[in-house]
Amino acid sequence: MPDDDESPRPRGAYAKGIARRQEILDRAIEVFAARGADRTSLRAIAREVGVTHAALTHYFGSLEELLVAVYEESNAPTHRHEIVADDATPVERMIASARTNREVPGLVQLYSTLVATALDDGHPVAREFATARFADVRARLAETVREQQERGRLRQDADPDAVAALVVAASDGLQTQWLLDDAAPQHEALALLDRLLRPAD
Amino acid sequence: MPDDDESPRPRGAYAKGIARRQEILDRAIEVFAARGADRTSLRAIAREVGVTHAALTHYFGSLEELLVAVYEESNAPTHRHEIVADDATPVERMIASARTNREVPGLVQLYSTLVATALDDGHPVAREFATARFADVRARLAETVREQQERGRLRQDADPDAVAALVVAASDGLQTQWLLDDAAPQHEALALLDRLLRPAD
Repeated sequence: MPDDDESPRPRGAYAKGIARRQEILDRAIEVFAARGADRTSLRAIAREVGVTHAALTHYFGSLEELLVAVYEESNAPTHRHEIVADDATPVERMIASARTNREVPGLVQLYSTLVATALDDGHPVAREFATARFADVRARLAETVREQQERGRLRQDADPDAVAALVVAASDGLQTQWLLDDAAPQHEALALLDRLLRPAD
Repeated sequence: MPDDDESPRPRGAYAKGIARRQEILDRAIEVFAARGADRTSLRAIAREVGVTHAALTHYFGSLEELLVAVYEESNAPTHRHEIVADDATPVERMIASARTNREVPGLVQLYSTLVATALDDGHPVAREFATARFADVRARLAETVREQQERGRLRQDADPDAVAALVVAASDGLQTQWLLDDAAPQHEALALLDRLLRPAD
């Protein structure tokens, strides 16, 4: 493809801006993975990332927007290396995800902070992010449930949307319990849910 | 009982201090039930509760300790009026609890904030509270599971500790999803889990 084509590929100052934003974002992901998101400010983050406060504000607006960008980027395929079989059950998918999360406790804490922030009034960016993220994960999982019910991998007497909401909730909740106390039976409880959702013998 | 006995009943200045602490706590519960816990400071809370910052610090130490005290007090029997049948299943108990929680969204948000804070390093009070609270709820629920398995109310091929962890996680997670989006099938998912945990026909 020639350099002067009319494709929407960014170039010049715009391309540099995008590259710079990405650089800052990658560095911010490292910072958050190591330290978590709590009790912080945009100014403190800028110092740790190694950019000016003005640059961070220019590229990300507010702390809330930066946290959302860091979370979304850290969940992009380039940053996650989960290998999940095509016929993995919904719970097996969550188990793979939980395994990856254990390597980045700071990002799990960032996610918990975003959700807690979203529950409070006056945080529209966090609320929109969390609401859309749950709706999206539930919808994708419900689709997997429907397919696997048709193929006899999951019991057919359960509503796919209810199964999806239940699996997401169990996965999030068990991850929290395990992070606080590794005696919490996270694996056992997820394995139990997986078994309960399969067709009765 | 005479007033001058040697029982540990508080009296004099000590009794007044306890009563004053309780007054402040009751007022703080009202404030949090209405507003949530996020983006706040001990100073802002003192203003809303109507006491001095010094008084609040005297009685509660830090913001984290105040949040824990408010949460624990708001979950004491005097503040909760759940009617739960003795033979209610673990999930039915969580449903009764969720129904009460809907009346006090600010306290649910306070709970989410405490848990998110607990996940971050450097917050020993919140961490100790959240870890102990989960362990306690799981232990009590596992005991209920054992009893109901013996009486044939719950399926017997599931580990009681795993059931308890699963029910707590599902309940917490579904409450979060529902608070963000009342289209989330909270009731349907809890009813499904309840059914899955009962003995197969």
